[in-house]
Amino acid sequence: MEIKVLTIKEDILGANEKKARSNQDRLDKYGILAVNIMSSPGAGKTSLILQTIGKLKPETRVAVIEGDVASQVDADRLHQQGVSIIQINIPGGCHLDANMIENALDNLPLKELDLLLIENVGNLICPAEFDLGEHKRAILSSMPEGDDKPYKYPLMFTEADVVLVNKLDLLPHLDFQVSHFCEGVTRLNPTVKILQVSCKTGEGLEPWFSWLLAQMKDKKAR
Amino acid sequence: MEIKVLTIKEDILGANEKKARSNQDRLDKYGILAVNIMSSPGAGKTSLILQTIGKLKPETRVAVIEGDVASQVDADRLHQQGVSIIQINIPGGCHLDANMIENALDNLPLKELDLLLIENVGNLICPAEFDLGEHKRAILSSMPEGDDKPYKYPLMFTEADVVLVNKLDLLPHLDFQVSHFCEGVTRLNPTVKILQVSCKTGEGLEPWFSWLLAQMKDKKAR
Repeated sequence: MEIKVLTIKEDILGANEKKARSNQDRLDKYGILAVNIMSSPGAGKTSLILQTIGKLKPETRVAVIEGDVASQVDADRLHQQGVSIIQINIPGGCHLDANMIENALDNLPLKELDLLLIENVGNLICPAEFDLGEHKRAILSSMPEGDDKPYKYPLMFTEADVVLVNKLDLLPHLDFQVSHFCEGVTRLNPTVKILQVSCKTGEGLEPWFSWLLAQMKDKKAR
Repeated sequence: MEIKVLTIKEDILGANEKKARSNQDRLDKYGILAVNIMSSPGAGKTSLILQTIGKLKPETRVAVIEGDVASQVDADRLHQQGVSIIQINIPGGCHLDANMIENALDNLPLKELDLLLIENVGNLICPAEFDLGEHKRAILSSMPEGDDKPYKYPLMFTEADVVLVNKLDLLPHLDFQVSHFCEGVTRLNPTVKILQVSCKTGEGLEPWFSWLLAQMKDKKAR
């Protein structure tokens, strides 16, 4: 039974990989930068997206794909922002996959976009295994979750292009050692950018906006 | 492919269910109460277990099974408590299953135990699908994660026997509506006990200890 499951899993990941490449080709054709945003439940992905839209619009044309097990709570929060939003609900599921993103791309105005933000399902484990065709991966880790997260959930941090440590506004009330967290991340991923931010107050987000703009510029230049 | 995967998933869950029943029979034979503790990463499972051991020892003989993707950070925190601890690491895995618990039971002094606390992998989705043979399920949800969690991750809350809302000490600094959270839980699970607690300060934990003691008493009486 064990071996059978592993084989199936490889088949799934192989098929997902092909679809992911096709998604990326499609995004490249339209010059769209896609960023896969992953975190534990409630680490602040939607707040990060709200801050990002608020800062980059209207110069940057943004769309959002919202992945959730249930509800459209996050999509409702984003609805007022005047951007295209695709809500994907996955009852019983624990991650987005490339097939879901393909379906979402079919329903987005690709000619009119520069940036696609993909909010993955709140889960610090499974989403890291599934390539969606994104160009970059942003991991959010919130300070109240504790400074041991990179040690306990290594894959997510190993595959990140940028790590945002959120809820900096709560730091005075927490036993969170920034140096211990950063050491854990850097051990897995020596060159990754680590930013301390508060998606609630906006503190520390300027380098994130600059990073996104630089990635988009780099993409258009190619 | 889709149908094939679903079949395999049913096979896995079916095999897991059989093993879970066998685990529960074994625990019953020794009069041990087993509680499966589940939450998002960093919601406070280990702190809850530390508080519980501190309160119930030595009258109650406790053992702990620690489930993690990687590291033994949590087991190290528990090591000073003088209880039996089994660390289970699951690289690439996202939940404990009944087979892992069977292996752990093989390595615990069952004759000398009253209470088995199982700390599942930090994940608000996948662990809810896997019966371990436990008698009760305790769900921890931490206030900084937000009051929308029951709406977005319903299965976990539907299957809970008790819901502990942790990090009450941070409430003054958060936009967390206790009534909105409780309404979401009660809609899924009308009779579940909901407790507001701080596993850091110990506030609000007395009803949790009383509930555990009542479950153990009830078990011994059967």
